[in-house]
Amino acid sequence: MVILGIDPGLANTGWGVVETRGSLCRARAYGNISTGADEPLDLRLRAIYDGLAEAIERYRPTDVAVEKIFFGQNTKSAIATAHARGAALVACAHAGAAVGEYTPMQIKQAVVGTGAADKHQVTYMVRRLLALDHDPRPDHCADALAAAVCHANLTRTQAMVGSAASTRGRTA
Amino acid sequence: MVILGIDPGLANTGWGVVETRGSLCRARAYGNISTGADEPLDLRLRAIYDGLAEAIERYRPTDVAVEKIFFGQNTKSAIATAHARGAALVACAHAGAAVGEYTPMQIKQAVVGTGAADKHQVTYMVRRLLALDHDPRPDHCADALAAAVCHANLTRTQAMVGSAASTRGRTA
Repeated sequence: MVILGIDPGLANTGWGVVETRGSLCRARAYGNISTGADEPLDLRLRAIYDGLAEAIERYRPTDVAVEKIFFGQNTKSAIATAHARGAALVACAHAGAAVGEYTPMQIKQAVVGTGAADKHQVTYMVRRLLALDHDPRPDHCADALAAAVCHANLTRTQAMVGSAASTRGRTA
Repeated sequence: MVILGIDPGLANTGWGVVETRGSLCRARAYGNISTGADEPLDLRLRAIYDGLAEAIERYRPTDVAVEKIFFGQNTKSAIATAHARGAALVACAHAGAAVGEYTPMQIKQAVVGTGAADKHQVTYMVRRLLALDHDPRPDHCADALAAAVCHANLTRTQAMVGSAASTRGRTA
């Protein structure tokens, strides 16, 4: 499975591609799409769409994991993030990839084991889990890779649960 | 000038195309893109992008007028609208049209003369200003046409101010 993780933001949209083989996850690539606050909104959103479309074209993900909005942030930044998410999700839909959406808490829980983890812990665990020889930077890239790892874990767990249920069904 | 007005919303995105000749505005077409609450978010946003891209392809607007988010609404619906705006603005940017963004108050002010106008007043004035023989329905279409009229009026006023300033410059 090839998973594109996305941490959407208007100023910075992080993305990261993770490949899974069984329980093993490895990073294939990651990057960050930056847009300037002085650019018109439509051009910033086009840059996000185009940047992600390019990554999708290159790495052909089967699945996409997109971070949901944290409702605790202030309304103005939540709205800016939602604009970026809109652009990002259209790029994913145009590519026909299966899209999973996860809250920041679900993502932290999946990679660190607690939804209250800070950025350093997320970066540290993403580096360890993906056996990278460096910290993925900026933070948006680590968050995007973490979203992909979260999707990989949950998909694998769901498959195992499904398989166990069907085994029980056969032996009952 | 051919102006595409857009009233973005996740459940309903209204659009309307207005053509101007001097101070005269006429409606060429309008429509509404509906998406179901039970559909995945990425597919709803793709429908908005694709519907607007189709209208842009057909009517070739030179300018686009997009309604801004009303910050008085609750955070959840503002975020849903921002997702739709993200999809809409990428479609506009991909078409290379000049994008103007207007607050609901600016739009009401431009078509009714007061920022406190209600939906009935907006529909009534859009019908009169564009010499339609019927009320544009649903409301989202009237709001989209109103955004286009607002853009036409402000663009014309700016051109007149610019022209007056340059006349003053020549005679000074």
